[in-house]
Amino acid sequence: MTKRHWEDFESGAVAVYGPRLVTREEIIAFAAEFDPQPMHLDEVAASATLLGGLGASGWHSCCLLMRMITDGFLFDSTSMGSPGIEDVRWIRPLRPGTHIRIRSTIMDKRASNSRPDMGLVKFLFEVVDDADVVLTTLVTTIMFGRRERGAAS
Amino acid sequence: MTKRHWEDFESGAVAVYGPRLVTREEIIAFAAEFDPQPMHLDEVAASATLLGGLGASGWHSCCLLMRMITDGFLFDSTSMGSPGIEDVRWIRPLRPGTHIRIRSTIMDKRASNSRPDMGLVKFLFEVVDDADVVLTTLVTTIMFGRRERGAAS
Repeated sequence: MTKRHWEDFESGAVAVYGPRLVTREEIIAFAAEFDPQPMHLDEVAASATLLGGLGASGWHSCCLLMRMITDGFLFDSTSMGSPGIEDVRWIRPLRPGTHIRIRSTIMDKRASNSRPDMGLVKFLFEVVDDADVVLTTLVTTIMFGRRERGAAS
Repeated sequence: MTKRHWEDFESGAVAVYGPRLVTREEIIAFAAEFDPQPMHLDEVAASATLLGGLGASGWHSCCLLMRMITDGFLFDSTSMGSPGIEDVRWIRPLRPGTHIRIRSTIMDKRASNSRPDMGLVKFLFEVVDDADVVLTTLVTTIMFGRRERGAAS
């Protein structure tokens, strides 16, 4: 199999990964370990919060997104990781029983300033629900190996 | 006990939470669930990556940070959650056996534009290792209940 290299990513390209069902049990288990605030653990307590009912930790949404893009395309790519995250917006709650998809849009790509064997691709990832409503957006740049070494930009 | 309200947070204030030991077992367990790339799962495979050896998923660092600030001060506050993350930088790998601390610096605070019962506090959180070297930085704004309703700004 030929892995996707930096050259194979095109600005403007859109792809969708999933669906994945998010259960009440996993929302609570994640929250108990990493984000044990009432709005992520208990329906009654959550109903009195800004979420208006039980919703996943925003970090849980990010982690599910990470897993879905790893399975979706990073495994079959020359990904070298990411230096960080440029923006995350938790727009609407992720409720138990939702089937989420990840919509990926390539915002930009450029050669590395320092490494001729590497290039950078900037992505907008959106977590969308069954009705295609956007729950979370995340902007990040991922580093990929190049098929052919180029002049650093 | 009196919870910390928005009025109790002061720009420039610094606090440190932790330490917490991060084990090889939990690094691999987290990666297997959410970020199963070789650099987070296997020492030999990881040695050939940019991490230069096994290191935690960047998302794992974020989730540990979330848990440590929840235990550290959010539980005893009027936190109403966060609209998102403004910036994350994964600067250096988080290695197995590291005792991490979270250094919190308040960058700014302001009243809510829409809710007189709410205020916003902008934080820089740094994940630091045993030697106080910064591994990860994260900037986010958290919403807190106000002790006294104010005019919206």
